[in-house]
Amino acid sequence: MKKVELALGTRSYQIHIGINNLSRLGPEMRKLGLRGKVLIVTNTKVEPLYAESLIDTLKETGFSVHKAVLPDGENYKNLDNVAFIYDCAFNAGLDRQSSIIALGGGVVGDMAGFAAATYMRGINFIQVPTTLLAQVDASIGGKVAVNHPQGKNMIGAFYQPRMVFMDIATLLTLSSGEIRSGFAEIIKYGVISNHSLYSYLEEHPFLENIDNLEYWMDVVEKSCLIKAQVVSKDEREQGLRAILNFGHTIGHGLEAATSYQKYSHGEAVAIGMVGAACIAREMGLISSGEEERIKNLIGKTGLPVSYSDISWDDLWFYIQRDKKAQDGNINFILPTSIGSVILSPVDSELMRKVLEQELVK
Amino acid sequence: MKKVELALGTRSYQIHIGINNLSRLGPEMRKLGLRGKVLIVTNTKVEPLYAESLIDTLKETGFSVHKAVLPDGENYKNLDNVAFIYDCAFNAGLDRQSSIIALGGGVVGDMAGFAAATYMRGINFIQVPTTLLAQVDASIGGKVAVNHPQGKNMIGAFYQPRMVFMDIATLLTLSSGEIRSGFAEIIKYGVISNHSLYSYLEEHPFLENIDNLEYWMDVVEKSCLIKAQVVSKDEREQGLRAILNFGHTIGHGLEAATSYQKYSHGEAVAIGMVGAACIAREMGLISSGEEERIKNLIGKTGLPVSYSDISWDDLWFYIQRDKKAQDGNINFILPTSIGSVILSPVDSELMRKVLEQELVK
Repeated sequence: MKKVELALGTRSYQIHIGINNLSRLGPEMRKLGLRGKVLIVTNTKVEPLYAESLIDTLKETGFSVHKAVLPDGENYKNLDNVAFIYDCAFNAGLDRQSSIIALGGGVVGDMAGFAAATYMRGINFIQVPTTLLAQVDASIGGKVAVNHPQGKNMIGAFYQPRMVFMDIATLLTLSSGEIRSGFAEIIKYGVISNHSLYSYLEEHPFLENIDNLEYWMDVVEKSCLIKAQVVSKDEREQGLRAILNFGHTIGHGLEAATSYQKYSHGEAVAIGMVGAACIAREMGLISSGEEERIKNLIGKTGLPVSYSDISWDDLWFYIQRDKKAQDGNINFILPTSIGSVILSPVDSELMRKVLEQELVK
Repeated sequence: MKKVELALGTRSYQIHIGINNLSRLGPEMRKLGLRGKVLIVTNTKVEPLYAESLIDTLKETGFSVHKAVLPDGENYKNLDNVAFIYDCAFNAGLDRQSSIIALGGGVVGDMAGFAAATYMRGINFIQVPTTLLAQVDASIGGKVAVNHPQGKNMIGAFYQPRMVFMDIATLLTLSSGEIRSGFAEIIKYGVISNHSLYSYLEEHPFLENIDNLEYWMDVVEKSCLIKAQVVSKDEREQGLRAILNFGHTIGHGLEAATSYQKYSHGEAVAIGMVGAACIAREMGLISSGEEERIKNLIGKTGLPVSYSDISWDDLWFYIQRDKKAQDGNINFILPTSIGSVILSPVDSELMRKVLEQELVK
């Protein structure tokens, strides 16, 4: 079992990374002083895989355990389903000392976290991410949210969990598409701040390591370390944390313009990273060679490096809507080399030219 | 214009108390560095009274102003109406630098505050309370929430405003019943921490001063000072802040047991304060003489000191549901003298006996 510390003063917490370690969750929660009632928030896909064994260990350590089982999918990440979690919490009699555990991917974590942040003005929250995407990104850092018809994650809060607890063995039940989607974020960590991680990913393709749990222990831990360092320096995204949005400005636009149906989050971010790299090269910020390395690793991973059937006007509409727009200016995270990025405003005409010439299939 | 400081480190803010001062709100917001878009959240009752002049001053100081007008009443304090505020915010194009202003009583403030806390994970929030209850209590301290079918204020957050700005002249448009409801909270401040305020209230009955704005400037400022001191020591109600719940345990139970139809919040709290004082006397914590003083001032103010047509079983059910229940024990704030309270668990049988013998009409 590895542990990564997320330092945030009195709200600091640990990220536990292990293999077949779910039976340890109960004892670790006791160590934090947690007791009483627990509501496990999960979905119809994850529940049959892990809920029973998790419930057993929690009961053995003295918790009174209840479940809220959501439908599976980003479509359900809305206020109605948060209201369903509230109802389950009330029916189970959760009080201010109780805990909500998110067991699942990013959608479950975001919704359960928003419910935990707002039920009785905030109760204990534990993340148990079961997808690669949630393990390396969504479960860490306290961003919780639901979608609004006008945009993704538009209703939310900053609310830190008391602990993040991940079992790397859960990755064995994921499809390669799901793994690939999470892998896009791992590539992102390499580009934004760790050249040696990036080189390691180039030399150790994930497809050759898909069942190698030691490989995943290693790259997940490295990813968690980077995210934890960034979040501990800028919890509320007032500066540095924005670098985690590398690839996400165009990515969110692509997801919204296709109603979240066409691309997985990782695929959209992959295209967004390629787009940001092209823009950076066009602006003279990064060399063609390094831009190519970014495009190559993403392509070799089987992630898309271009898009089709989306007009510039549509894409631009949704990019402007994105919450990182400030008075109509679009600020981009742009790579200056592998391992380093900057924040820079980007002219919309330049952006249009680059995307239409280099990214549209 | 008077100013009371609420000290909370980087989240400190000022409470401005003045007479006919609404035209100063725009300039004061500019001093805080606020700019861009503003959404005024108000209701159908308050909007015709103050919205127009507020909009004018904000426009004059360079803000782009939009409105969200809610129906009037506690019945509407729910997630559906928060969703309506989100929709208005999106339609107006509010971004992370924008502000939400709550113009109205506690219901408007709580809903607008919850929307501000969660729209794009939190934007600037300004309280402009227009009722006595909101001025001395709800607008200060960052507790924002909506009701759930299973209880009042059950869904919410701690989210501090950037400023609280009150015009005491707004009190002249309130009914004496509304004034009385707010006055219950002022009496509460006297009991929990300020004997001289309490004596002043005994000597200067509010009915003789209902149009005396200097009187209100004075008692509102004293009330705000007490609340600000308590909140700055315990923002998230982990200890001291619980003293502000004096009268509220029974009060919330009475409100819930009568579906929020029979008693105003102040009336319910008034009965709750009398109940807590009786329990304290029965437990030997306060003298009969001081208990009588509490009962007398509440009665002289025209607030109820007893209730009827509510069974013990009903009341107990709702008191247990209240979020201050911990593993079934009910913790009460009990007065030990005028100006001092303690937190103490109360036996439900004792509580039943006292209420049935002394409070049921």
